[in-house]
Amino acid sequence: MDAVIISVGMELVTGLTVDTNAAWLSSELAAVGVQAQRHVTIGDHGSALAEEVRRAAAENSWIVVTGGLGPTTDDISRQAVAEALGVELRVDPDALRQIRLFFETHGYRWSESNARQAAVPEGADLIPNKWGTAPGIHARIGQSEVFCLPGVPREMKAMFQAAVLPQIAPSQVGPVLMCRSLRCFGAGESTIGEQIADLMKPGGEVVVGTTAQEGMISIRLVARARTPALACGLLDARSAVIKDRLGGLVFGEEDVSLEAVVGRLLLGRASTVTTAESCTGGLLAKRLTDVPGSSGYFQRGFVTYANEAKVGVLGVEAQIIQDHGAVSAEAAAAMASGARRSAGAGYALSATGVAGPGGGSESKPVGLVYIALASSDGCEARDCRFGQHLPRAEIRDRACSVALDMLRRKLLEV
Amino acid sequence: MDAVIISVGMELVTGLTVDTNAAWLSSELAAVGVQAQRHVTIGDHGSALAEEVRRAAAENSWIVVTGGLGPTTDDISRQAVAEALGVELRVDPDALRQIRLFFETHGYRWSESNARQAAVPEGADLIPNKWGTAPGIHARIGQSEVFCLPGVPREMKAMFQAAVLPQIAPSQVGPVLMCRSLRCFGAGESTIGEQIADLMKPGGEVVVGTTAQEGMISIRLVARARTPALACGLLDARSAVIKDRLGGLVFGEEDVSLEAVVGRLLLGRASTVTTAESCTGGLLAKRLTDVPGSSGYFQRGFVTYANEAKVGVLGVEAQIIQDHGAVSAEAAAAMASGARRSAGAGYALSATGVAGPGGGSESKPVGLVYIALASSDGCEARDCRFGQHLPRAEIRDRACSVALDMLRRKLLEV
Repeated sequence: MDAVIISVGMELVTGLTVDTNAAWLSSELAAVGVQAQRHVTIGDHGSALAEEVRRAAAENSWIVVTGGLGPTTDDISRQAVAEALGVELRVDPDALRQIRLFFETHGYRWSESNARQAAVPEGADLIPNKWGTAPGIHARIGQSEVFCLPGVPREMKAMFQAAVLPQIAPSQVGPVLMCRSLRCFGAGESTIGEQIADLMKPGGEVVVGTTAQEGMISIRLVARARTPALACGLLDARSAVIKDRLGGLVFGEEDVSLEAVVGRLLLGRASTVTTAESCTGGLLAKRLTDVPGSSGYFQRGFVTYANEAKVGVLGVEAQIIQDHGAVSAEAAAAMASGARRSAGAGYALSATGVAGPGGGSESKPVGLVYIALASSDGCEARDCRFGQHLPRAEIRDRACSVALDMLRRKLLEV
Repeated sequence: MDAVIISVGMELVTGLTVDTNAAWLSSELAAVGVQAQRHVTIGDHGSALAEEVRRAAAENSWIVVTGGLGPTTDDISRQAVAEALGVELRVDPDALRQIRLFFETHGYRWSESNARQAAVPEGADLIPNKWGTAPGIHARIGQSEVFCLPGVPREMKAMFQAAVLPQIAPSQVGPVLMCRSLRCFGAGESTIGEQIADLMKPGGEVVVGTTAQEGMISIRLVARARTPALACGLLDARSAVIKDRLGGLVFGEEDVSLEAVVGRLLLGRASTVTTAESCTGGLLAKRLTDVPGSSGYFQRGFVTYANEAKVGVLGVEAQIIQDHGAVSAEAAAAMASGARRSAGAGYALSATGVAGPGGGSESKPVGLVYIALASSDGCEARDCRFGQHLPRAEIRDRACSVALDMLRRKLLEV
């Protein structure tokens, strides 16, 4: 049986909020061999939700609905599922007790509107929620089963793993579907696509595709086989061929980040890194410390946004900034060397550039960033031109990715 | 006419990538009075896309399709739209010239697979793409119109604004739909919902709803009226009532961030801020410098992850860390005071805590973060307990939000 994922919320369909639940649910379902055929997002309209539930039920699907279980009057999922089932809502005394208990144990203030969350369609089961106030709903409709979960990602995920997945996983009898993705950095999508074009032809046992996002290219592999072991074997074989062709461009698998790869390499070499940031303004240190355990190789970092800070904090010679400007290979190199010296670290990464949208000139346009890496071998600097059309956030993020990739390649010597 | 937004991509429906295009398109459409009824996400299956296009066309909609126009063989949108229209694909010589020109002017390497992007269904128009390689497609199907755009957000957005919106906006003759959102920080969703419960009743001229995300509560208002001026007037009046009731909880409108609000306040007072970060590891500086022009009030920041860095860089007395631990109100206060002194800034924010997932103890559990604000009035510190169930990224992000909100309230004296 395939799955249909329905996200409910005016904030989603009007675009105020980006839905991340559907993607997460798809990954979880794929891991147990259930393929999401469709994500649908609708507003807080009970009749639209009832229609989508009926359409998915006619396709004999697992149906996962998120959102619309909150305490306010715009939360319509309970009523809509009752409508799709053709039954009435009743207040469940167990649910009411659970919700009151949650409020008491967390010291939250009880308000009568929270009682609304204890209503359940006749004949449906409750899905307990230990992580928030709204219990979920589980009902059977024809050959299909529908699970309603809260929209808050943290609660939804915990409830899905605790109560929904154990019901879906054992009933899968069809072929197993397994996904893998290889993460690449350092070349464009069509360049990479061309090197593996023969593997991307449709119809094989493993479907291979590429996606570009913020300078990273993901190569996704989807294998179908009779057993998990067979599917895994297909993915292993195909991954090995791709990695062999692309060499140092592939930095990891699944959702591993460049910073996590760099962290593992530093730990393995018992070395440390520090940061000296101008245009990236702390993002490089933030990305390094996104990784749990990063205190093992990152002890301090410097955000030197102003020129006086580069001189005062990092010991960059004022003459260098005067001669070459703060946005220059010379300044980047002096920042990295100064930070490495000051922090007593094995490696130092620096970034200085024009992140925009203002501040660009003809010789130093928006998107120009100098990145340097200092190590015991000395200091190497490079310039990146990210294109003036890119937004500030993307220029900053790509500059950090280039810096992290420089360190990765240095550590791997590729 | 309403709209249906269809996102195409195996990476989306399998959950490898979160779709942000549909939300952005909905906001843009709402601004010209077109309401998105539904977002649908499907994989790289031509027949599924053709079916969704036909279903939306039967509802007389504007149909916007993103994705599936890339250079690789898994890109199926051109073929599927041709199927929905019942016509064949042809290679458009103009499109081929445009794509080749784009490659030449950007110095990209041409590969024959890129020629695939010049195919167009018979009778359909090309939508030029000056920002990337894949041109879009515009076709009429019954009373509906379908626009196919690339999936890369930057290209999609530029093309939508340049070529799609000008075709949709003038043909809207129905009532105008306008949205606004008020951003709140410092109380839970049900507390806020209760204070405005009477305004959230359905059926009024302005629909009011609430959403919680990462500790922020958004109150969204959707008004329908005959003219933009009338809709804007309704939103102004309703916003004023809500702001009056919620007071200092509301920090801004639309997608304004706490850091942007803090930045404007600092600029207005010609003051500056610095940062001393332990568990947030650069994220606070990153968020402050996310704002263009932040060099006007942020000159330097310190990431002092290790205890020696707190002592060496910020001048925190080693005795304080020995007596109270690095995760303590005393350490947070000493970090903020030290950073303010060292940077010569008007204000300093610090954060020290246990971001997890490891490193927690009974007395200092995961989620405990001390945040301090130093100013000419002295130093105030507070403890936050974000809950051990929250992921590392969310604990770090919320700690930064609390710090920024402390500074906002200090600057506003609320």
